[in-house]
Amino acid sequence: MKKASNPVSGVPARQNHRVRRLGLHTQHQPVVIMRSDCDVCRSEGLSSRSQVLVSNNGRAVQATLFQVTGDGLLTLDEVGVSETAWQLLGLSEGDEVRVSHPPTVESLASVRRRIYGNRLDGRAFDEIVRDVVAGRYTDVHLAAFLTASAALPLDTDETAHLTGAMINVGERMRWDAPIVVDKHCVGGLPGNRTTPIVVAIVAANGLVMPKTSSRAITSPAGTADTMETLAPVDLDLATLRRVVELEGGCIAWGGAVHLSPADDIFVRVERELDVDTEGQLIASVLSKKIAAGSTHVVIDIPVGATAKVRGEEAANRLAAQLTAVSDRFGLSVTCVQTDGSQPVGRGIGPALEAFDVLAVLQNTSDAPDDLRRRAALLAGAALEIGGKAGKGEGAALAFETLADGRAWAKFKAICQAQGGLRQPPTASQRHPLAADRAGRVVHINNRKIARLAKLAGAPQAKAAGILMNVRLGDEIDRGQPFLHVHSETAGELAYALEFAGRAGDLIEVEA
Amino acid sequence: MKKASNPVSGVPARQNHRVRRLGLHTQHQPVVIMRSDCDVCRSEGLSSRSQVLVSNNGRAVQATLFQVTGDGLLTLDEVGVSETAWQLLGLSEGDEVRVSHPPTVESLASVRRRIYGNRLDGRAFDEIVRDVVAGRYTDVHLAAFLTASAALPLDTDETAHLTGAMINVGERMRWDAPIVVDKHCVGGLPGNRTTPIVVAIVAANGLVMPKTSSRAITSPAGTADTMETLAPVDLDLATLRRVVELEGGCIAWGGAVHLSPADDIFVRVERELDVDTEGQLIASVLSKKIAAGSTHVVIDIPVGATAKVRGEEAANRLAAQLTAVSDRFGLSVTCVQTDGSQPVGRGIGPALEAFDVLAVLQNTSDAPDDLRRRAALLAGAALEIGGKAGKGEGAALAFETLADGRAWAKFKAICQAQGGLRQPPTASQRHPLAADRAGRVVHINNRKIARLAKLAGAPQAKAAGILMNVRLGDEIDRGQPFLHVHSETAGELAYALEFAGRAGDLIEVEA
Repeated sequence: MKKASNPVSGVPARQNHRVRRLGLHTQHQPVVIMRSDCDVCRSEGLSSRSQVLVSNNGRAVQATLFQVTGDGLLTLDEVGVSETAWQLLGLSEGDEVRVSHPPTVESLASVRRRIYGNRLDGRAFDEIVRDVVAGRYTDVHLAAFLTASAALPLDTDETAHLTGAMINVGERMRWDAPIVVDKHCVGGLPGNRTTPIVVAIVAANGLVMPKTSSRAITSPAGTADTMETLAPVDLDLATLRRVVELEGGCIAWGGAVHLSPADDIFVRVERELDVDTEGQLIASVLSKKIAAGSTHVVIDIPVGATAKVRGEEAANRLAAQLTAVSDRFGLSVTCVQTDGSQPVGRGIGPALEAFDVLAVLQNTSDAPDDLRRRAALLAGAALEIGGKAGKGEGAALAFETLADGRAWAKFKAICQAQGGLRQPPTASQRHPLAADRAGRVVHINNRKIARLAKLAGAPQAKAAGILMNVRLGDEIDRGQPFLHVHSETAGELAYALEFAGRAGDLIEVEA
Repeated sequence: MKKASNPVSGVPARQNHRVRRLGLHTQHQPVVIMRSDCDVCRSEGLSSRSQVLVSNNGRAVQATLFQVTGDGLLTLDEVGVSETAWQLLGLSEGDEVRVSHPPTVESLASVRRRIYGNRLDGRAFDEIVRDVVAGRYTDVHLAAFLTASAALPLDTDETAHLTGAMINVGERMRWDAPIVVDKHCVGGLPGNRTTPIVVAIVAANGLVMPKTSSRAITSPAGTADTMETLAPVDLDLATLRRVVELEGGCIAWGGAVHLSPADDIFVRVERELDVDTEGQLIASVLSKKIAAGSTHVVIDIPVGATAKVRGEEAANRLAAQLTAVSDRFGLSVTCVQTDGSQPVGRGIGPALEAFDVLAVLQNTSDAPDDLRRRAALLAGAALEIGGKAGKGEGAALAFETLADGRAWAKFKAICQAQGGLRQPPTASQRHPLAADRAGRVVHINNRKIARLAKLAGAPQAKAAGILMNVRLGDEIDRGQPFLHVHSETAGELAYALEFAGRAGDLIEVEA
């Protein structure tokens, strides 16, 4: 057998280029811009949208190259650098970088094998996730990996491998308490914003609950989006630890503490695809819980015809899958199936949901009762797991903690520790949608309502979303508004209303 | 049942922005750059990497928005426009455009359904392909569609739907001849560049062969890449028609005549993914043949352990699938299985393959015999289909046409009509890979050889690629070069040699 001899005789010297900060925002994807007629583009044979390796003082990032012709933007010895690339390389004005071909991304061979239906082992997932976090995957590669994992769903082994791989590339926290509880909702139900209430109740009863939440993937608001209207959530690891040591709990954005940096990247692409699969969902949830040092997790699975989980059977399957994967990491999971037939509370969107949360915590007379009950149910499960209430007595203790003001006091203290309690913003643009006949509300389409809230600007526009005026079983008159669309801008309001005009039934009314 | 009333009260007036041509090259994806603090970004709630609609005088394109902060690049009332967007909108300096939210891309719902394993009908494929060609799909969406079609392979119905959809969005040619022949190779075999020879032979015998070819997808050279080193291939529809009416044949780049504009976009993403699936392959081939007005197609299917099609069974399946789909469009397909065990000819890469083509056409003494025989076999099949030779006598006529110089004369005439015969470029950087033991060559790894040629710069660098010095069965001495790597730049040569050093066996030698 013969081997090709290794004839590398030394890589040729490459010209350095002076960096030019463009102030260009490109999200996670580092971008550099160079003249197509510069020496590096010519000698390296680079074309527009090539992947390149940009290096400076031992640091290196893979970036997408765009080329310009003409001298309007850059001189021949300059390279324009996007903000993401600037930060990752730790550049200063006047620095020089080298631009060259990036090394081959070997893990893409595993992605291709996965597309063609081959299962992957733990090592393959480790290599993929490491390359993803290092910025070596383009949008095309990321979308292919996520699509392949949706088309042939990840099995239990693969889901565990992916979970492990996602933990391995992030930070990991450890706590001094024997029991560290956490909660999670698998989503799909607009307005289901129990987390801030649950953390307040659980921490008020002396348990440790270092809660990190994500921003919305395909929904109008994630817990981090809502909480951000009430207090800072971009806590670094040291701040998060200080808040939890001080108050027993926190409600922080998981992305800021880098507990699962791979997840932040996957989520961005899942949002663009509007696809959210079970394996990715489980790996996303569990990797963050395990990295956060949790020992026990209560998982809320809303079930309903237009919720993410549509029936009891699917909910049982998801619960079994969650338990099977979490078992491998020694994490105890308690799944709670809840009613997913209609939105929870009145508000849908970051600030509108925050007002519901405040109403429940402050015991106001118009606080949405469904939100209060759900939060108490989930907090109760956590209190039982943590030994603060006997079996079946957790919910009662949770209601008590709300009623006597201890939950509200704890919430204010947590917000204070996170940087100060804020007043959520309100929308300048509001528009009612009116019923065109009288009768009883018999169906609410969660998916269309969520879509409407997103088109109105949520979650990027914090004050945007939907305020529901009816619930299932309510009687409504012809011409009476059944919801209000809230937007921060006239453009987004028009965009949402255009959708409402052609979306068909948002709610169904029976005479 | 109730319907939401349509409450659109008029879209708010939007501010126009003055265009600024950036000279920015972004391939097919239109890009615009705006200040994040400009009135449109604020009023429309746009963020970096939002999709936006850019319109000017009734023309509109969907583009990816990047935002900049600071006033180094743009003023608040300017929008920077990439070359692709500039061309699509037909802009001139001083023009103004409107930037707003794009309409919802409804066909993405079909892509999502396909990801989850649902088959799509003809209407869904029509809508998807129409949106793709209109530039409404981001890289994430394109990659998801292609990956879903690979993970659950397109069935016969879907492949036919996709083929039809791709025909519907492009130009379509009609010819006065009762028989219009075409040929295609499904690829996977480095150096298999028979097309220019086949067209010359067939046209020299009076048949009509308006050949359009693609550029490389995952290979080191496509026929268009090779032909471009010999003559212009970017012919518009009128020029192509004139060439064929004059000479009976042409060898043009399909992308330039827009016979299948969707294919050009899919191919770019397939190249980035390095994935090339059967359904996409069939739709890509047949849509272009049908759009070109062909009535009969000869399809070369090279079969070999490291070729694209690895065994006879797979070749038969592909042939059956090609026939089943082409039948629906009244196109007659003749599949010819050929030896795919080693590269064809000596050169691999655009210019190096062109030199082999010239040698065969010019009857030089060192012309590669395998390339000559393959071309004659395929041309013979076309001559039989076209009634120019009796059954089993086509190959003999083809050899005769090469031997008596009529093929070379026809080829020169075609090149002249396309814009003039050129001399292919040669590489400045060449490096031998030497055998590390003596013996007989028993295996050549097509895939690794192709990869090496690509890393050396092919097909973008026309002169780059591999010159093979051995064929299967040859005896080789220790230290004797078995191939030479050709590069246009030192950087690419180093990159290729680095791969060769760690790729393992490119060829196998038995003592």
